[in-house]
Amino acid sequence: MTDMHNNTDWLDGIKWDADGLIPAIAQDAANGRVLMVAWMNRQALQLTAAEGRAVYWSRSRSKLWRKGEESGHIQIVHELRLDCDNDVILMQVKQLGGIACHTGRESCFYQVFKDGAWHATDPVIKHPDQIYDQQHK
Amino acid sequence: MTDMHNNTDWLDGIKWDADGLIPAIAQDAANGRVLMVAWMNRQALQLTAAEGRAVYWSRSRSKLWRKGEESGHIQIVHELRLDCDNDVILMQVKQLGGIACHTGRESCFYQVFKDGAWHATDPVIKHPDQIYDQQHK
Repeated sequence: MTDMHNNTDWLDGIKWDADGLIPAIAQDAANGRVLMVAWMNRQALQLTAAEGRAVYWSRSRSKLWRKGEESGHIQIVHELRLDCDNDVILMQVKQLGGIACHTGRESCFYQVFKDGAWHATDPVIKHPDQIYDQQHK
Repeated sequence: MTDMHNNTDWLDGIKWDADGLIPAIAQDAANGRVLMVAWMNRQALQLTAAEGRAVYWSRSRSKLWRKGEESGHIQIVHELRLDCDNDVILMQVKQLGGIACHTGRESCFYQVFKDGAWHATDPVIKHPDQIYDQQHK
């Protein structure tokens, strides 16, 4: 049995950017919808693989961000992929609650380009006030 | 009729990074597969919308890159979306030739994480030597 937990070759192979980060795409494993893109540092990616749930690095808060820790909208990771340049991660996830976006929408990509402008098109499934604890706003 | 071509509000609304770039995801409109991620500057995004084909900014070559200009593997853009933070683009594309990756694979995301390592899993549809003019290699 190989000692997976001490093997960090798979992390060393990542082409981290100047800030030590890599962008990670979360794609809904059930319907193929691209839900969001966020960033991971080495520890976040390691924890994502170890825990089987998406863990990001919040650039605005400069801390690890276990997706769903406040909202409950956890992303269970079914598959992790890496691109040919080793600088983008793609995850197949099960999106708990069916909401990935902090605006209460299924996907963060809800603005569609049409007639020279961006239009918010997708419905808000749940109002953010009902998702997040008011104390934390 | 609005003057779409002189209206740049939709470009001004983008949150460009420190290098004036935004990452753009190309997703196959037919099968939902995430094909690749590359970068666009303001001109590349403007041209993508104007020409209806993916135009990226090559960071390694520091020049505009009309995807498929050498390979023929052009990406016809069906839809452009922007995420909630205005800092990632998602495109629904028709991938000509069925190959997005310079390795000759359908998608750039062909490395799957398993047992503590990345494994190249997807088949090479066409060898790069048959895709690219040898003079340009």
